[in-house]
Amino acid sequence: MVTSSAPGKVYLFGEHAVVYGEPAVPCAIERRATVTATEREDAALRVRAGDLTLDGFTVEYNGDTSGTPDVDVDQPLLEAAMGYVNEAIEQARDAADRPEAGFDVTVDSAIPLGAGLGSSAAVVVAAIDAATRELGVALDAEEIAERAYRVELEVQNGEASRADTFCSTMGGAVRVEGEDCRRLEDVPNLPFVIGYDGGSGDTGALVSGVRSLRSEYDFAADTVAAIGDLVRRGERALAAEDLDELGRLMDFNHGLLAALGVSARSLDAMVWAAREASAKGAKLTGAGGGGCIVALDDSTGTETALDYTPGCERAFRADLDTDGVRVERA
Amino acid sequence: MVTSSAPGKVYLFGEHAVVYGEPAVPCAIERRATVTATEREDAALRVRAGDLTLDGFTVEYNGDTSGTPDVDVDQPLLEAAMGYVNEAIEQARDAADRPEAGFDVTVDSAIPLGAGLGSSAAVVVAAIDAATRELGVALDAEEIAERAYRVELEVQNGEASRADTFCSTMGGAVRVEGEDCRRLEDVPNLPFVIGYDGGSGDTGALVSGVRSLRSEYDFAADTVAAIGDLVRRGERALAAEDLDELGRLMDFNHGLLAALGVSARSLDAMVWAAREASAKGAKLTGAGGGGCIVALDDSTGTETALDYTPGCERAFRADLDTDGVRVERA
Repeated sequence: MVTSSAPGKVYLFGEHAVVYGEPAVPCAIERRATVTATEREDAALRVRAGDLTLDGFTVEYNGDTSGTPDVDVDQPLLEAAMGYVNEAIEQARDAADRPEAGFDVTVDSAIPLGAGLGSSAAVVVAAIDAATRELGVALDAEEIAERAYRVELEVQNGEASRADTFCSTMGGAVRVEGEDCRRLEDVPNLPFVIGYDGGSGDTGALVSGVRSLRSEYDFAADTVAAIGDLVRRGERALAAEDLDELGRLMDFNHGLLAALGVSARSLDAMVWAAREASAKGAKLTGAGGGGCIVALDDSTGTETALDYTPGCERAFRADLDTDGVRVERA
Repeated sequence: MVTSSAPGKVYLFGEHAVVYGEPAVPCAIERRATVTATEREDAALRVRAGDLTLDGFTVEYNGDTSGTPDVDVDQPLLEAAMGYVNEAIEQARDAADRPEAGFDVTVDSAIPLGAGLGSSAAVVVAAIDAATRELGVALDAEEIAERAYRVELEVQNGEASRADTFCSTMGGAVRVEGEDCRRLEDVPNLPFVIGYDGGSGDTGALVSGVRSLRSEYDFAADTVAAIGDLVRRGERALAAEDLDELGRLMDFNHGLLAALGVSARSLDAMVWAAREASAKGAKLTGAGGGGCIVALDDSTGTETALDYTPGCERAFRADLDTDGVRVERA
């Protein structure tokens, strides 16, 4: 039996623009998915999902994907989660050259599902690590990231970014530009506070909305390019450990995303609550249209303000996590 | 006795960027300031202000600016309004070559003071027109606009835009680029709905905030330039009478202004209320930081939604006004 965990992520800067070759900086956060893999004597895969969101519910999910667990989470989300585990186990079998290996897998996650915090990437990364180790093979981080990316590609019908899986595998702050992903070193602690509206946007529609704007309007293409320039300034601010500057850049990045049509009433309300409390800056994170905002605040002000903001279902602190995937028990 | 009126304005596009030579499109709205001028036998100026805001109060203001009228409006706003009237009368005396002419002046305005809707420009334009006509001189529109601009320069210590006074004088939709101002012809009716948060931002601080961002960050300069490109697209949409496109451009313009740090929690809340009701688009208008939003909606949906939006003190319809300054009674 091996238990591994991997972190979720927020975008400090650069979502959406990264689709067009601009750099982006996702950051791992101290909210983890934990996967335990135990080899079985037969070739079956039995998955049990524990807590798949913050703490709103628990689901017992046994056996194949035809059963219907009794939970108050979207069934499609749950089935999607199971699809990720199945494909991650396939990758582990392939990496260990054990195509017939069977597993009992338990998944627990403190990362809300479908909120844009990289929950699926974290589950996949942790599952690949736990299952390969259970078979006596320890993959290096690059290979875990690559295989996890392939899982997302497979499950998401060829539409995936390397950012989530790379960031979850490596931990810390990461720089993504096209196919090139690398970890940023000498980054200060980033006191993230996350506000979650309980929903999520339609990522496909949001991405294609930006694509339409960008092809229709020069100034929209310039807005995407401005996000790229902002990210490069953000990298300098990270290296200089200048949290005030990072906050200003987050605020600006949020406005550019709002111009591109990917904010939402709930996201703007949370962003303003954070700024008017004590955040150094705040922005939506991920595809937008709903989901989460991320603020930078080392005091308790933002979390308290978000707790009292209509439309914010949940607020929590989740500092930068410098650890990527790791073994918890073996 | 001559009574003249002149309209307030909203920015359809381009505020803030206009400071850096980009074009902007202010539009006159069906909310007017009305000024009655009656020549006196002596050289004195007696000003009586009627309703100086929407309809919240009435002020009787007699004689010089040392008295303190009993009203619930900021004293500085009121004194400022009197300063504008004094300087407008100076311009009328100069234009009519009657330096010793005395007047009883009554000012009524349906444009909220200090809300960024061009109330002072409308008062100045109407006052110059009424007072010169009372002296038997009818100035052409260009001269009224020029003299009104000089009044704003004088009262505002050398900081004024030609946009407000030109737009109020000419009416309709106006294009401003640097010193060049002209009226746009063949513009469709624009069904504006205005939401007012009851406050106002600090224009000087907001303008200098944008200046700092623009000089510090290339991407902020690009954001200002993107607003200019958006305005040029907006002119084409106006010519094509494409209100859906105008709405999309208003939404985008608002995001770029938010990136530049001139939106506010109340403004974003009103913008979202309008969009989620039935507006084709919505943006802040003017300097920002508080004050007004303008939405495009030919139905009653936006006004109703704004009436129920926390932080919106007042919502009202104010369609494009094709008339500029005009004589009401002579």
